[in-house]
Amino acid sequence: MQTTFIPIPPDSHFSIQNLPYGVFSPREGGEPRIGVAVGDVVLDMRVFHDLALFDDDLLNNSNAFNEPTLNSFMALGRDKWRAARSAIKQQLQPGSFLDNESMRQLAFFRQADVIMHLPVAIGDYTDFYSSREHATNVGTMFRAAENALMPNWLHLPVGYHGRASSVVISGTPIARPHGQTVRGDSTTPEFGTSRLMDFELEMGFLIGPGNEFGRPVSVKEAWNHIFGLVLVNDWSARDIQKWEYQPLGPFNAKNFATSISPWVVTLEALEPFLVNGPQQDPEPLPYLRGKSNRTYNIALEVQLQSTQMTEPHTICRSNFKYLYWNMCQQLAHHTITGCNLRPGDLLASGTISGPTPDAYGSMLELTWRGTKPIDLPDGTTRKFLADGDTVIMTGYAQGDGYRVGFGEVTGQIQPAVSLTI
Amino acid sequence: MQTTFIPIPPDSHFSIQNLPYGVFSPREGGEPRIGVAVGDVVLDMRVFHDLALFDDDLLNNSNAFNEPTLNSFMALGRDKWRAARSAIKQQLQPGSFLDNESMRQLAFFRQADVIMHLPVAIGDYTDFYSSREHATNVGTMFRAAENALMPNWLHLPVGYHGRASSVVISGTPIARPHGQTVRGDSTTPEFGTSRLMDFELEMGFLIGPGNEFGRPVSVKEAWNHIFGLVLVNDWSARDIQKWEYQPLGPFNAKNFATSISPWVVTLEALEPFLVNGPQQDPEPLPYLRGKSNRTYNIALEVQLQSTQMTEPHTICRSNFKYLYWNMCQQLAHHTITGCNLRPGDLLASGTISGPTPDAYGSMLELTWRGTKPIDLPDGTTRKFLADGDTVIMTGYAQGDGYRVGFGEVTGQIQPAVSLTI
Repeated sequence: MQTTFIPIPPDSHFSIQNLPYGVFSPREGGEPRIGVAVGDVVLDMRVFHDLALFDDDLLNNSNAFNEPTLNSFMALGRDKWRAARSAIKQQLQPGSFLDNESMRQLAFFRQADVIMHLPVAIGDYTDFYSSREHATNVGTMFRAAENALMPNWLHLPVGYHGRASSVVISGTPIARPHGQTVRGDSTTPEFGTSRLMDFELEMGFLIGPGNEFGRPVSVKEAWNHIFGLVLVNDWSARDIQKWEYQPLGPFNAKNFATSISPWVVTLEALEPFLVNGPQQDPEPLPYLRGKSNRTYNIALEVQLQSTQMTEPHTICRSNFKYLYWNMCQQLAHHTITGCNLRPGDLLASGTISGPTPDAYGSMLELTWRGTKPIDLPDGTTRKFLADGDTVIMTGYAQGDGYRVGFGEVTGQIQPAVSLTI
Repeated sequence: MQTTFIPIPPDSHFSIQNLPYGVFSPREGGEPRIGVAVGDVVLDMRVFHDLALFDDDLLNNSNAFNEPTLNSFMALGRDKWRAARSAIKQQLQPGSFLDNESMRQLAFFRQADVIMHLPVAIGDYTDFYSSREHATNVGTMFRAAENALMPNWLHLPVGYHGRASSVVISGTPIARPHGQTVRGDSTTPEFGTSRLMDFELEMGFLIGPGNEFGRPVSVKEAWNHIFGLVLVNDWSARDIQKWEYQPLGPFNAKNFATSISPWVVTLEALEPFLVNGPQQDPEPLPYLRGKSNRTYNIALEVQLQSTQMTEPHTICRSNFKYLYWNMCQQLAHHTITGCNLRPGDLLASGTISGPTPDAYGSMLELTWRGTKPIDLPDGTTRKFLADGDTVIMTGYAQGDGYRVGFGEVTGQIQPAVSLTI
């Protein structure tokens, strides 16, 4: 049992076993800086560093904790991440240097008193499509059940490049986008605002040390390039997507916004929750073959709240472990060509749907393309998202008496902006 | 007739009318810095700035010329770009402050004595597919002539997100990538090195001032967000592409490298070469409608040189003006959802093929999928690129006795790296 002088209820996402990193600024003013969430507070890592509380000279002398993003810290690699985690854990124990009133005043903020920022400067954002259930559902709806999965799907983790500039922090309002859409089988587009706004329940991992241009990372080495995970909501305009996506994939349907949760949960914190993912059949090609399909048991939930509702309503319960392709396979595939990753790159999973209809990770699937509307407690129904709807995604791994959680990623749909064309 | 004390032959790409920006460092050592190409020399803009030679206080006081990329300068906007151009032109005239031996020593380098770097830090890289001839050729080969163009193609500039991390400067060697491919109609992939390596002749434009998240840029305003253009070689592995690209578009087939030319030619320099592009029928939707389809007359050429050849051999002559969708339409479409662009973003055209077979901008089209191999002067033939082949792309606009040119973007195919899996 690990102890700390910070009070942490057992259902808190931010147990002493978690210690996720984020970037915050005090609500009362001050520069963005790196912090670690514990219970209801944030440990200011700039202060921690100024006090030279690491047991590691490189960390104590590093500029990484004076920066407004995690990128430099993430570039240091697993040994330094472990050293930092160990020092932070130690300082949170009763009787530590930080365990007194003046240090609490100096080094800690209440989470209610801080503003969270994007934790990293994202160079490139890649989005995979690694849930077999999701790919099957979408394939069934848009093609037919018998060839729902494309022939390549079971052989490689299908992915595409997303838009990095519009990755935003949880809480950022999302305006309904304009675009071209067609009705039914028409091939004459109309211009207007998207009528089929959707979310996608995803998780994403952030790259620590990158790889050299031209040098692939093997599936075995991939682990050392992954710093940690966040929740991802890959907002999607289904009607824009339907019209535009052939032959080069989704573009405007998703380029307007992707929301991420503010706290980055490290692989160290998730280690106790390692489980096997789905069995892979056919066996992957050697460059995608690890010892086993190791992934994490992370319970995920999506809630929806309209402006008329007083509390959120759960519409989806899924789990990270349902993903067919794991992160090391995704990373090895991404780089097998020699593509270089850089610290701070975001690689997301694709929609994480589970085997049952209540585990589908998008409105498209939950309402089966609008044919099975969702009933909300305010008496209204939803085929897709309405203006004013807030989508709240949350996720945690359940330990014995503690949680390693991700907090939330939220976003509210705003009416479309008015155009002056 | 504009004069300068720098000797400039009439076929130089870098006339006094051009004045493209780049980032260079002296071969003998020194930091990367901003420069302007004129004839065979480079004007060091750090020195120009230190001497306060601008007629503009903001430029003289700006830090933009002390940075190793053009991003900050590009963010300043068209008025400042014009002020800078005017001051540079003035200082290159006979009798200027710079026109003496000591200043020439201080402020100029021979192009042969400098190393060129990426001119910008590219946040996001978008690649369009805006040549009707290219889309028709590819559609004909992979589907059939009667439905070669997808139904959306004439209604919107189809595009997708590319990989920003692997955009490299001209001259960077390109290793043949590994990946999954299938033979014929097989659905069982093999792993190995790409057998169908290709180039794509493209041009790209760089974003100056960005737009706010959630705020579309109209086709009329688009102009003010475009700083200038470069040549782009979008290297492609056709066999990897064929197997992976459905349903989310090309990923590994193109993520390993994209080469750009080092000198950014501004829209100011290209103004005399404005022409009308192809007539657009059907008429675009209002948000894509400008006064006319204004584009530029820029002659483009692709040369290939094997290790056995003593000089490059021209295999393609095309022109920027063939593109169906223009840059302002591409930019307006990209942002109509509210997607935010940032200074330094690269938006490329897609392969620029012309109406005749000698104007096709890729090996795929030139050899019609390998069915019409190209004869090279060394007695060999090519269906696709061989190890050791160097691809050289060049382009210029021809004025009356002068050229506004882009120099070159080159790259040599290297044998694949050996893997340790």
